[in-house]
Amino acid sequence: MGRAYWIWYPADFELYYAMKQNFSRVERGMGWPAFWKSEGFRNRVVFRRTYLLEKETTFTVYSRAVGYVLAGEAKYPFGSRITCGPGEIRISVHVGRIDAFPSVYIEGDVICSDGGWMAEDYDNPPVPAGCSRYFTEKDQDPEVWEYSEKIYEPVSVEAVAGGVLYEFETELTAALELRPADAADCAGHTDCGTETDLADLRVYCGESREEALDTTYCYYSWQPDGETGRCPRCAVRFAYIPGIRPEQIRVRAVHQYVDIPVRASFSCDDELLNRIWSVAEHTFMLCSGVFFIDGIKRDKWIWGGDAYQSLFVNQYLTADEDIERRTMLALRGNERMTTHINTIIDYTLYWILSVRAHYEAYGDADFVRQVWDKMTALMQFCGEQTDENGFFTGREGDWVYIDWADLDKTGALCAEQMLYARCLDTMAELSGICGHPELAGEYRRQYGEFCKRINAYFWDAQKHAYIDSFESGKRHVTRHANIFAVLFGIADEEKQKEIVEHVFLNDKIAAITTPYFKFYELEAMCRLGYLKEVLDVIRDYWGGMIRRGAVTVWEEYDPDIPEEEQYDMYGDRFGKSLCHAWGASPIYLLARYFVGLKVTDAGRGEYELDPHLEYFEKADVVLPVGKQQLHVHWDGEKLETELTGCGSAGSDAV
Amino acid sequence: MGRAYWIWYPADFELYYAMKQNFSRVERGMGWPAFWKSEGFRNRVVFRRTYLLEKETTFTVYSRAVGYVLAGEAKYPFGSRITCGPGEIRISVHVGRIDAFPSVYIEGDVICSDGGWMAEDYDNPPVPAGCSRYFTEKDQDPEVWEYSEKIYEPVSVEAVAGGVLYEFETELTAALELRPADAADCAGHTDCGTETDLADLRVYCGESREEALDTTYCYYSWQPDGETGRCPRCAVRFAYIPGIRPEQIRVRAVHQYVDIPVRASFSCDDELLNRIWSVAEHTFMLCSGVFFIDGIKRDKWIWGGDAYQSLFVNQYLTADEDIERRTMLALRGNERMTTHINTIIDYTLYWILSVRAHYEAYGDADFVRQVWDKMTALMQFCGEQTDENGFFTGREGDWVYIDWADLDKTGALCAEQMLYARCLDTMAELSGICGHPELAGEYRRQYGEFCKRINAYFWDAQKHAYIDSFESGKRHVTRHANIFAVLFGIADEEKQKEIVEHVFLNDKIAAITTPYFKFYELEAMCRLGYLKEVLDVIRDYWGGMIRRGAVTVWEEYDPDIPEEEQYDMYGDRFGKSLCHAWGASPIYLLARYFVGLKVTDAGRGEYELDPHLEYFEKADVVLPVGKQQLHVHWDGEKLETELTGCGSAGSDAV
Repeated sequence: MGRAYWIWYPADFELYYAMKQNFSRVERGMGWPAFWKSEGFRNRVVFRRTYLLEKETTFTVYSRAVGYVLAGEAKYPFGSRITCGPGEIRISVHVGRIDAFPSVYIEGDVICSDGGWMAEDYDNPPVPAGCSRYFTEKDQDPEVWEYSEKIYEPVSVEAVAGGVLYEFETELTAALELRPADAADCAGHTDCGTETDLADLRVYCGESREEALDTTYCYYSWQPDGETGRCPRCAVRFAYIPGIRPEQIRVRAVHQYVDIPVRASFSCDDELLNRIWSVAEHTFMLCSGVFFIDGIKRDKWIWGGDAYQSLFVNQYLTADEDIERRTMLALRGNERMTTHINTIIDYTLYWILSVRAHYEAYGDADFVRQVWDKMTALMQFCGEQTDENGFFTGREGDWVYIDWADLDKTGALCAEQMLYARCLDTMAELSGICGHPELAGEYRRQYGEFCKRINAYFWDAQKHAYIDSFESGKRHVTRHANIFAVLFGIADEEKQKEIVEHVFLNDKIAAITTPYFKFYELEAMCRLGYLKEVLDVIRDYWGGMIRRGAVTVWEEYDPDIPEEEQYDMYGDRFGKSLCHAWGASPIYLLARYFVGLKVTDAGRGEYELDPHLEYFEKADVVLPVGKQQLHVHWDGEKLETELTGCGSAGSDAV
Repeated sequence: MGRAYWIWYPADFELYYAMKQNFSRVERGMGWPAFWKSEGFRNRVVFRRTYLLEKETTFTVYSRAVGYVLAGEAKYPFGSRITCGPGEIRISVHVGRIDAFPSVYIEGDVICSDGGWMAEDYDNPPVPAGCSRYFTEKDQDPEVWEYSEKIYEPVSVEAVAGGVLYEFETELTAALELRPADAADCAGHTDCGTETDLADLRVYCGESREEALDTTYCYYSWQPDGETGRCPRCAVRFAYIPGIRPEQIRVRAVHQYVDIPVRASFSCDDELLNRIWSVAEHTFMLCSGVFFIDGIKRDKWIWGGDAYQSLFVNQYLTADEDIERRTMLALRGNERMTTHINTIIDYTLYWILSVRAHYEAYGDADFVRQVWDKMTALMQFCGEQTDENGFFTGREGDWVYIDWADLDKTGALCAEQMLYARCLDTMAELSGICGHPELAGEYRRQYGEFCKRINAYFWDAQKHAYIDSFESGKRHVTRHANIFAVLFGIADEEKQKEIVEHVFLNDKIAAITTPYFKFYELEAMCRLGYLKEVLDVIRDYWGGMIRRGAVTVWEEYDPDIPEEEQYDMYGDRFGKSLCHAWGASPIYLLARYFVGLKVTDAGRGEYELDPHLEYFEKADVVLPVGKQQLHVHWDGEKLETELTGCGSAGSDAV
C-alpha cells in the first residue's frame, strides 16, 4: 500500500480544532468560549486527481462524510474496492458533512491519499489538500485527536480538612482517574473503599495547593464518571476530594499530550539557570499541543501575540514546524478578513510577523506560498483602517492592546505603527518567493515612506524617545514603542543610543511589568549587548517565581505581592494562570543570544554562531538546526561545537 | 411563563437545515451531496437584551452549546435559576458550538426568549434573533426536526417473483416499518413470520411498481433496523421484499411531513381538472417540507428556480409565509456572495424576484428589510459580471441554464437580461420600504437604460421576436426570452402582439418541453387572454400523466415516449422524478387567472377578483386571502364570494 494520509480542504482541520480549543475553557462549571469571530470549516468539498496508470490497480475510499467516488464515468460508494486502469483516469471524491470537516482516506498501491490531491470548495480555485502526520491510518477519525498518554501517580497523599489532597510531581494536563482502593491496596485493612460510589465524589483541581483546597473558588471540579472513574482532561497539580479517608480512594493522573519531541537541552554551572530552563521547557511543552495556547488552565485560547512569542521558543526547543503551521492557520481563519485576530489589532499584525519568523527559521517557502493570499488580504484589511495621516488605527470596537500598561492610546499609537511598518517590510521580503517580485518594490517603497512618517510624528528629539501617541499632546513615553524601534531597526543607530540612555536605562520611565512584553524588552537589551543585565533579570524574575515554589512559569510575577495574594489576577481569586507559555522566553534568550545560534538555512543545516558563554564557567547545550542537532560545549576557555544526527521531527509536508 | 421560542442567529437555522436537505440525496446506496458551495451557520454567538424590571423576577437559560449567562456583572451556568431585578439589567447569553448552530431557550415570566432579543456574531452589527414556530418547548432540540406522522397501511399486498410487493394508496415520504406477522395476523396459520430475522431482509422502494421490482436500478433500498424494523425516510409508493411470502411480513408506512395546513380547495364540473388539482396539491405538499424542494426522490435539493415557482403555488394553496422565508434564507446563504445560487446565474436572479413575489403576496416588509443587505450584495455581485455591452454574463464555470432547451448561449443571453432587468425593477420597487428611497430612482434609471439596451441588441424586427443572443450572428429565436418579455412587461404592446403571432402561435418555434418553463409560458398566455388554450394544455399534459397512472406530477412527461421508457431520464433507468414540485403550476394558473384572485393587501384581507369561470359549468373554490378564506361559488350564471374566518397558518414572526 502507498503511504496515505487522511486529507481535507487545507486549513479545515486547523479551523475545526481551533474552535474545539477556543471553546474548551471552563471556569467554575461554566463554559467560556472565546469572544471573537469563530470561523468554520467547509462543509462541501471535492478532492480530485488524475492518474496515468501503467496497469490495472485497485483502491478504496473511506470517509465519514456523505458522498461518493467518481472514477472516470463510474460512481462508487465509499468502502467499495474500485478497480481501474491501465490508462489515464480522473478520480473525484465528493464529500459533504455538517458536524465536522469532511475528510477522506484513500487506500491503494498506486491510488492513495498521499501528496498530489487537489481540493475544491465550489468557491475558490483548486488547492493542494491538507493532511497531518498524526492521521495516517484508515481506522482513525480526524475529528478526534488521539493524545499520547503518560500515567502519573501522586507523590503525596495527605489528609486535610476532612478530605484528601493528592499532589503530583509537577503540573499536568491530565484526566484524573479515581478508583476505590481494594483489599490489595489496603494490605489487609478492613476500611478500604470498595463500597464507595464514585459518582458521589467530587474532585477539586488546582494549579496550587491553595486552589485545590478552595472548593468554592477553584476553577475545575469534576464528578468522576461512575463507571470509569475518569474526569475530563484539565490542568492539575493538586487534587482534593472532600469527605474521604486517604486509604479509601486511589487517584492517578493520565497526562494527555501531543507528542512533540524536545530536541534541546541546556546545562551550565548555574543550577538556578538550569532549573529556569527546565521549568520554562515544561511550561512551554504543556502549552504546546495541537496549537500554541496561552495557558493550560486559563485561557486555553490561541492568542496571536502569545503564539508569536511561542514561535521563537519553539524554534530552539523542538523545531517542530507543524505546530507553527497549525497555529497560524487556526489564527488567521478563512481568506477574507473582516475582524481582527482575537479582536486585537496588534495580534493581527503579529500574524504577518509570525509567517516571517517561521520562514526565517525553517525556510518553509511552501507554507508562505500557501498563505500568501491570506497575507495580502490581511494587509488590505489593515490598509483600509488608517487615519488622515495614514496611520493604522483599527475601527470602533477593535482592541488596541500592545500590553497591560499605562499607554496613552489617544489616536494612532506608535507601537502599532512600528508593527505595521514591520509588516510592510515582511511583505517586501516575502513577495519574491511567492512569485510576486513586482510587489517587493512597492512594499519596500511603502515601508520606507511609512518609517519616515513614524519618525516625523512620533520621535521626540527633546525626550530622545518615541512617544506613545501625539493626538492628546501629552507626549507620553513608555518603553514599548522604543523597544520595537530597536528590534525592528526603525530607529537608526543614533536614535538607538538615545533610547538606551533616556528610556531603557531611565528609571523614570515605567518598568515593563508583564513577562509578555519583558520578552521584547530583554531581546532588545540582548541586541544592544546588555547580556549581563538580561541574565540578572532572568535569575531575578524567573528565579523569584521558582523560589516561591513554581514548577511552571506564571502568567505574571510581582515579588512585592504577599504570598497569600500571589494567585489572584483580574480581580479573581486563583485567576492567575500558573502555567503560561509567554514565560518560556529564557529558552529563546539563552539559545539565541548566549549560545548565539542563528539558523541561516535549516534545510542544509547551515547556521551562524555568535557565542557569549563568557557569563558561564561551563555550559553544555544541544539545539536543533534543521533536522540535525548542534552540540555546544564550553569549558570556560574553549568552545567546541558538533552537528550530529537527523532530527526526529516529522512533518505534515508530503 | 412568557411565550418562548428557541432562538438563534438569524438564518443559522435555515443554513443548517439546508445542508441537511441538500446532503440527503441518495442514489442506489451512494450519498450525493449537492454540488455547490454549502455555507455554514455561525459557531460563536451572543444574545443580548436589556430589561427594565418592575420587580424581582427569575429566569433559566437552556442550551446544548458551550457558554454562560451574564446578568449584570454576574455569571451563571446554563440550567441555573437566576434571580434579578427590580431595575435595569442587561442580559447576555454567550454560546459556542461546532457541530450545529448554537441556540438557546430562556424560560421565565418576564425574561424569556420571545421577540426582542438581539444576536451578535462578533462580525456584524446586532440583528434580531431568529426563531421558528416549530421550536417552542425547552425539551426540544432545534437541530432535530420533529416531523408530523401519519400511518399508511398498504392498499395491496401481492406475491411477485418470489417476493412480496406492497402498494400504498399514493406516494409518500415515509419510513417503512416491517414486523414479522404473528399468530393474530395469520388467523391461526402456522407459517407466520415470527421466526424471521428482519435484519436478513432488504426492502426495495419505488415511485413506480417497475422501480420497486427492479432490485438493481431502484434508487432506494434498505435493510430495516434489526430491533425496530424501521427503514430511513424516503420517497415510496411501492415496496418490494424479495424472498418472503405475503403472510410472513407486515409492512406499514410512517409518512413523515411538516404540518403546513392546506387552505384551498377546488371543485368544478370537470372531474379531470378536479383530479389534476388534487394530484398537483399532493405533489406540492410532498415537496414542501422544511423547504421547497424540487422532488422527493430526486434531487431532494433546494433549487432557486424551482423554489421561485413554488412560491406562486404556495400563495394560493397554503399561504404559509414561513416556508417561503426559510427557503429564501437557505438559498441565499451568508451576506457576502461569491458564487451563484445552485451555481446557476438565472437562479441567483430568481432569488431577488422571490423576495418580490413574497412581498407582493403577504406585504411582509419585515422580511424584505431583513434581507435587504443580502439583496444589495447579490446585485453588486451580479453587477460586477457584465460584458463590454453591460450585459450580465456570469463568469467562467457559472451555469447559464434558463431551461433544458436548444438555446444559442453564445455570449450574453437575452433571457438572462430579461431576468436581470426584472431584478433592477424589483430593487427600485423595494428600496423605499427598506429605508432607501434615494436608491429607488437610481435603480429605476438603471432599469430603463437596461431595457433600452435589451431592445436595441436583442429585438429582431424582421423576426418580430427577441433572439437568444447576438454574438454568434445566428439570431436564433426560442420562446424563452419572449415569454419573459411579456411577463415582465419589457416588450411594449406592439411587440407583444408580434411575439404572440410570430413566436407563441408559431409552430416553427420549438415548443417548450419542460413543465418548468411551461409554467412561464402558460402564465404568459393567461396574461394575453388565451385562457381556453391554457385549459386545453392543462387537460392534455397533466391529464395525460394521470391517464398513465400518475398520482403525483412527474418531472417531465412526453406522450410520445413508450410506457416502458417513461421513467427514464438523464440516461438513467428510473432517473425521472415522479413527484416534482414544478408540476403543481395548475393550482396557481387556475386560482390566479380562472378564479382571478389577486391579493392586494394580505394584512387587511384586501384583494382583486377578475374571474374567468365561464369555462366551467360550475365551480366551488376556496382560496386564502391573508388569514381569511375567500369562498368563490359559480353556478354557471352567478358568482358568489364570501370572505370568512381566520386562517390557521402560524408565523415565525414574534
